[in-house]
Amino acid sequence: MISTKLTELLGIDHPVVCAPMGSVSGGRLAGAVTRAGGLGLVGVSYGDPAFIDEHVARASETGGVWGVGCVMFTFDTRPGLWDKVLGYAPPVIALSFGDTAQVQKYVASAADAGSHVVVQVHDAGQAAVAVRAGASVLVAQGAEAGGHHASLATLPLIPAVLDVTQGAMPVVAAGGFADGRGLAAALALGADGVMMGTRFAATEESLATAGFKSHLVSARTADTVDTRSFDVVRGIPWDEAYQARSVGNEFTRTWTGRDAELAAQRATVEPEWTAAVARDDTTQRAMFAGEVLDQIQDIQPAAQVVHDVVADAEAILARLARRSGAPTA
Amino acid sequence: MISTKLTELLGIDHPVVCAPMGSVSGGRLAGAVTRAGGLGLVGVSYGDPAFIDEHVARASETGGVWGVGCVMFTFDTRPGLWDKVLGYAPPVIALSFGDTAQVQKYVASAADAGSHVVVQVHDAGQAAVAVRAGASVLVAQGAEAGGHHASLATLPLIPAVLDVTQGAMPVVAAGGFADGRGLAAALALGADGVMMGTRFAATEESLATAGFKSHLVSARTADTVDTRSFDVVRGIPWDEAYQARSVGNEFTRTWTGRDAELAAQRATVEPEWTAAVARDDTTQRAMFAGEVLDQIQDIQPAAQVVHDVVADAEAILARLARRSGAPTA
Repeated sequence: MISTKLTELLGIDHPVVCAPMGSVSGGRLAGAVTRAGGLGLVGVSYGDPAFIDEHVARASETGGVWGVGCVMFTFDTRPGLWDKVLGYAPPVIALSFGDTAQVQKYVASAADAGSHVVVQVHDAGQAAVAVRAGASVLVAQGAEAGGHHASLATLPLIPAVLDVTQGAMPVVAAGGFADGRGLAAALALGADGVMMGTRFAATEESLATAGFKSHLVSARTADTVDTRSFDVVRGIPWDEAYQARSVGNEFTRTWTGRDAELAAQRATVEPEWTAAVARDDTTQRAMFAGEVLDQIQDIQPAAQVVHDVVADAEAILARLARRSGAPTA
Repeated sequence: MISTKLTELLGIDHPVVCAPMGSVSGGRLAGAVTRAGGLGLVGVSYGDPAFIDEHVARASETGGVWGVGCVMFTFDTRPGLWDKVLGYAPPVIALSFGDTAQVQKYVASAADAGSHVVVQVHDAGQAAVAVRAGASVLVAQGAEAGGHHASLATLPLIPAVLDVTQGAMPVVAAGGFADGRGLAAALALGADGVMMGTRFAATEESLATAGFKSHLVSARTADTVDTRSFDVVRGIPWDEAYQARSVGNEFTRTWTGRDAELAAQRATVEPEWTAAVARDDTTQRAMFAGEVLDQIQDIQPAAQVVHDVVADAEAILARLARRSGAPTA
């Protein structure tokens, strides 16, 4: 057992959070992580109501500490969606990718509803905004992450965010973590836990398709690329500060760096692309994955991931304390 | 005292290495780090013979474990320089930025001369080449580093390199490290020590100019930029896989991303730029620095840096072991 400010605040056993990945982190995955003693988050993503109902039900039936993870900028165009999220009264609401006004609005609203509010940040300035807005936990996500991320790497980001929070709240490290070495390193940097995405996408319980899971095992970190092409083809108005890391394929090779052209040809390209995604065509679909693919060799049960990460981190910390010769008690 | 494969192999007290930064890591800085129990490396850089003689003399008079750090690709056009390096019989020769043939040639030659051979790598493929060539220590340098670096971040790079070395040799983590939190995190990842550049550039003993040191203290990580412009204006044939991170200034804002134009105008631009550098004009000069500037608040004695990094890492590791509840003895 590794006790941190995160485990104490949320009342969970292990400082391990499953990222709320859209179309990947359903109720089965979130529930499995929660049952294993971590924090499972259902990915609300761009907000299909039937999807959310089904998967929140699965996560909440654990009776444990679960949550939903939301992309803030989507709420402004879908006010009903936010009320729907609040209506579930999730123990945890995780918020990401909003501007200052959105952070202030949704953090206050979620806190009023009685949820613990987790806010993802990518630099010290965003951390200060989230702290002032009343977040109860920060996730500091570095550029190694899969899917959408900003430009600063995790290693320098964590100390920068900790300098803002000054120990007043738990800080969870994200981006580049997939095993016990990573959890031990995050704790050494001063973080209170890790959020992992790619490692949990590569589990039996994740909603990742068969084709995507196959690439999570076979592709390597060097095969990943940062791209906006999946956002452009879907017509989702992402801020240009964020690119999305995906396993590279024919679609990214064709379109990355040609955003304006793709936008112009969207009427033609989008239907074909959507059809290809529907048949799990891995030459076309997004396969969001972080710079941890070199560490992923297999599809595991989510509980096994949680167990191994914590056990390995414990063993590493015990070994290092012995080797450093510092008094440990 | 933190004992690792690195400290054991080299017979040094602390797993802390001063990067061999060109025009920054002179004999006074390298000597101070060596005297403090770390490994000090003189930066041979592009190889001014008088500079090398003077600074090697200063480092070697410590009588401790010191070394020289060389950029391999420069040797092929200056054969006399390599013989000069070997002639000093440095306890450690650190080699960076060479292709496979250069790694094979210079590692073998340095090992024949009886030096410990440290090779810097940026991905698993380069690590395999260095291991096969007979390197005795690897430095795994991530993209957070100041000066020249490749694209993969340190956090995913370290496990990838450790998977290649399989414990057969020490691996030193570089890129993003500036304090005890970083050393503790590097050890947690499985590395055997850290190499720090920017933190040692911001010391009393470094050869960084007054203007450069002032920016090391005042500039922040967000002020750094990756650029090729300083290589282009100097006419140094760097492989395009490597960019150099510098504190951004008027020169980088003018020229970054305009390599071909700068090369074409070099006859005009270079003399003015060189004159500006000579008068320490910080609007023009390179100020190589990594993504750790947020962690640097002052110019310190190098021995203080070594001491604080090690003491802080020891305290962190002891505290984490207690908190993890794992048996420590």
